[in-house]
Amino acid sequence: MKKTKQVNNDGSRLKVIPLGGLEQIGLNITAFEYEDSIVVVDCGLSFPDDDMLGIDMVIPDITYLKDNADKVKGFVITHGHEDHIGALPYVLKQLNVPVYATRLTMGIIENKLKEHNLLNHTKRKVIKFGQSINLGQFRIEFIKTNHSIVDAAALAIYSPAGTVVHTGDFKVDYTPVFGDAIDLQRFAEIGKKGVLALMCDSTNAERHGFTPSERTLSRIFDTIFHEHPNQRILIATFASNVDRVQQIINSAYKYNRKVVVEGRSMVNIIDTAMNLGCLNIPENTLITVDQLKNYPDERTAIITTGSQGESMAALSRMAGSAHRKISITPNDVIIFSSHPIPGNEKAVTKVINELSMKGAEVIFQDVHVSGHACQEEIKLIYTLVHPKYAIPVHGEFKHRKAQAGLAADLGIPKENIFMINSGDVLELGGENAQVTGKVPVGTILVDGLGVGDVGNVVLRDRQHLAEDGIMIVVLGLDSGSGQLVSGPDLVSRGFVYVKESDALMDEARILMTDVLDNCIGRGCSDWGKIKSAVKDSLGDFIWKKTKRRPMILPIIMEV
Amino acid sequence: MKKTKQVNNDGSRLKVIPLGGLEQIGLNITAFEYEDSIVVVDCGLSFPDDDMLGIDMVIPDITYLKDNADKVKGFVITHGHEDHIGALPYVLKQLNVPVYATRLTMGIIENKLKEHNLLNHTKRKVIKFGQSINLGQFRIEFIKTNHSIVDAAALAIYSPAGTVVHTGDFKVDYTPVFGDAIDLQRFAEIGKKGVLALMCDSTNAERHGFTPSERTLSRIFDTIFHEHPNQRILIATFASNVDRVQQIINSAYKYNRKVVVEGRSMVNIIDTAMNLGCLNIPENTLITVDQLKNYPDERTAIITTGSQGESMAALSRMAGSAHRKISITPNDVIIFSSHPIPGNEKAVTKVINELSMKGAEVIFQDVHVSGHACQEEIKLIYTLVHPKYAIPVHGEFKHRKAQAGLAADLGIPKENIFMINSGDVLELGGENAQVTGKVPVGTILVDGLGVGDVGNVVLRDRQHLAEDGIMIVVLGLDSGSGQLVSGPDLVSRGFVYVKESDALMDEARILMTDVLDNCIGRGCSDWGKIKSAVKDSLGDFIWKKTKRRPMILPIIMEV
Repeated sequence: MKKTKQVNNDGSRLKVIPLGGLEQIGLNITAFEYEDSIVVVDCGLSFPDDDMLGIDMVIPDITYLKDNADKVKGFVITHGHEDHIGALPYVLKQLNVPVYATRLTMGIIENKLKEHNLLNHTKRKVIKFGQSINLGQFRIEFIKTNHSIVDAAALAIYSPAGTVVHTGDFKVDYTPVFGDAIDLQRFAEIGKKGVLALMCDSTNAERHGFTPSERTLSRIFDTIFHEHPNQRILIATFASNVDRVQQIINSAYKYNRKVVVEGRSMVNIIDTAMNLGCLNIPENTLITVDQLKNYPDERTAIITTGSQGESMAALSRMAGSAHRKISITPNDVIIFSSHPIPGNEKAVTKVINELSMKGAEVIFQDVHVSGHACQEEIKLIYTLVHPKYAIPVHGEFKHRKAQAGLAADLGIPKENIFMINSGDVLELGGENAQVTGKVPVGTILVDGLGVGDVGNVVLRDRQHLAEDGIMIVVLGLDSGSGQLVSGPDLVSRGFVYVKESDALMDEARILMTDVLDNCIGRGCSDWGKIKSAVKDSLGDFIWKKTKRRPMILPIIMEV
Repeated sequence: MKKTKQVNNDGSRLKVIPLGGLEQIGLNITAFEYEDSIVVVDCGLSFPDDDMLGIDMVIPDITYLKDNADKVKGFVITHGHEDHIGALPYVLKQLNVPVYATRLTMGIIENKLKEHNLLNHTKRKVIKFGQSINLGQFRIEFIKTNHSIVDAAALAIYSPAGTVVHTGDFKVDYTPVFGDAIDLQRFAEIGKKGVLALMCDSTNAERHGFTPSERTLSRIFDTIFHEHPNQRILIATFASNVDRVQQIINSAYKYNRKVVVEGRSMVNIIDTAMNLGCLNIPENTLITVDQLKNYPDERTAIITTGSQGESMAALSRMAGSAHRKISITPNDVIIFSSHPIPGNEKAVTKVINELSMKGAEVIFQDVHVSGHACQEEIKLIYTLVHPKYAIPVHGEFKHRKAQAGLAADLGIPKENIFMINSGDVLELGGENAQVTGKVPVGTILVDGLGVGDVGNVVLRDRQHLAEDGIMIVVLGLDSGSGQLVSGPDLVSRGFVYVKESDALMDEARILMTDVLDNCIGRGCSDWGKIKSAVKDSLGDFIWKKTKRRPMILPIIMEV
């Protein structure tokens, strides 16, 4: 293996500090620090785990960036997916720095900033592929890649300590639908000059071979349209997959159909993409959902959100007969141009079953290609970039470990492959690399307007309430004597269906009266002790009777 | 297509009445009724959907059987999986009739009946393959099949109106690990004599080709043992897959390792299988978990539950460092000999990641074969049985529809293929078949000791509580004047982290005081109105401030 050239003028080292994204899917955000300069790559959200009840989204803790606010030169964004941009509005409210991104990525970010009234307060710059920007001691170059969204970029991060190449999410598509193929020549050129570290997408690192070109779907859509000349065709896919939408529209146009786009998020992104010229729609092809009724089934196609079975998305509402304007009929063919994201399998299946029960034909296999590089593509990028150090990113632990295995197969010494965690400070440069410290990291839960006001205590309570409900015991104690003057009143929610459990509640009330007599009657005036007595005795009683443990909440009123 | 012979002496018709299992996975139970005789095939539970918070299991509503209790001759069980036997103890408490099953199936049922103190009250009979039993006007023959549990049976249900063949869950395994291959000759023989209807397993009806033999895994286990001579080997699989356990033990024995079986459900089933001679374990091969420490890693193997990522199962506890006796180390190889059941993907991935992070090697691909028939096997059974009517069973709607497509391809007229729903009364016999009525069906939720006491109201409350928590407003009103003498006191759980929301709660308290002044102060003494005023104004206030909708529960005490 040839020796990698190192550029390191002054002994200072480059710090790579992931602030999220290594313990979960999403939440991608990584700080690069060199002396007085910090550049941050991406600022994504993640979606709540099943046990984060009631939570809308999860954003990263950026304490480290706020503590070093004077150093932070800006956010550099690889592409416009939620797991790379979704936390930006929340983070920019805490740290107002410029944002750099390619055209469509910036268009999508601007939609978000508008919603949060941040557009006028945020410095933004659209960067072209091949273009570089200087941010403090860093220079950042945007390199064309391919992904399941247009305008995805890899980044070459040049520092005095050396160069890091960050792929973002990517695949190698030699025949993309829109724009150019990934700029492999530039990867090679940068690699030839010497690269300190490669941070490469691991999502598909367990999969052999190559991810097929997005364009391979074009023939599949044509075939489906050809084989269903008399039916209405509905296609569900990811709102942000502009290339997919382009291909569906191409097929629809070829087969002389009008197209409706349905679902708010898809309409928004398609509008943005059209305005930026990333989508070419023949005139008079798009119609509104209200115009549908003017055309026979065989002259229309509907592109819709809901390919993941999301309960509020357009397709799910159609499946559940809850869509105001579109009803599914036996003359519909419905195509899922997607693959269920792990965790969504059951929801997707539910929608497929509902649609089938309405008599529609549902096609859900082999109408999708991934947006992420498989093993051969990952090996190609490693070979072109030829890094000294490998830092697998983007993906769960098992995916990153699979990439680490590939890197080792390609001859990178094991001690040069870093499986780091969020918060690790990985110092690179000079003769070696190592994790030298830890910065605070964490996840902040967003619930409605509340950012961070739902913590573990609240989540534990929600889980408890979800599991067995709540039982409230209210007592009125005389403010003078401390004697029981009212109650105990028992109220339950989410515990048992009260009508059928009268006897149980009556027995519980008698028990509570006894317990309070025993406790207060004996002169106890310590509210803490009274509450404990209520909780313990009622909890035991209910467990014995029902094998359930509702939350028991004693409330004492002084009257 | 040759004409199917019909046997129908007296014009009476056979009723096929599924009481569950056609709208969900699990809950398999079907009544066959001819004049004064009812025979019930299987009595399964289903596992709760994600929105059934706190529910342990779901069992079928057997109102129809109770209403016709004098007709019911018994339960005939196809095999020992929970989705076919799990509801038996609950149903037998309501309807005490005999149970008929093959050897291992009955062994597993008896374990259940013991837990519920039902063993002495339940008439049971073990049936051999090829044997028939007479139940009222029915004769039921048990036919050998293959499945992912030993002793699975198909049933030939003979009635004066004709014969129905019910496959149960099955696959065609020409080289099973234990016992014989499926009795294809008998299927053919029965088919030759004329079969009215075939009720066939649809689970894999979307999959092309043949399901591989269970025995194909034998070589795969050998290879894994061969390639990891110095590591400890842990294998997670389904507790009830006795053949899988047999093959793992065979490989372990061949490679000179002692075997520990871990996980309560697996230990139970293996005990039962050993006692019945369905499992052959060489002497001195099994050791207890406490003996593990006496052997080096390379001389041990552990077979464990938890292949579905179930949070309380042995492997999940090991992964989370919560297992009392087994700790995962980098010298462990862990094999998932299973495929995630839809809905469990995320949980399984979580366990895989946790194990990987502990440095263990995890193998989770291609170490499993399905227990259900793929398309070629389904076509084989249809061709041997050659039924007049096809009634696809076992599987979601989309699976059953796929089987309906296969049946049509094989030449069964579309009007003879019945996609029925639970509760439908399908009458067969004479010259035609049709759904002639509907019987009450439903799902009954089991939560702890409560059977059916959690209904929609309770579940809706649990969902509400889970989403945004609860806010309780307690007031004391003077029993004479009706004036506010105490409170309003506000208590919340699962809503906000109170320490950081003092201001919000203070503001809410002030608002409540104003509202009550306005309402009670103006002479309102209608508690309903007072509660409404509290709910509406506090709900609006909280929504405006937080975009959340906690459950608001006003409690009035008279003092």
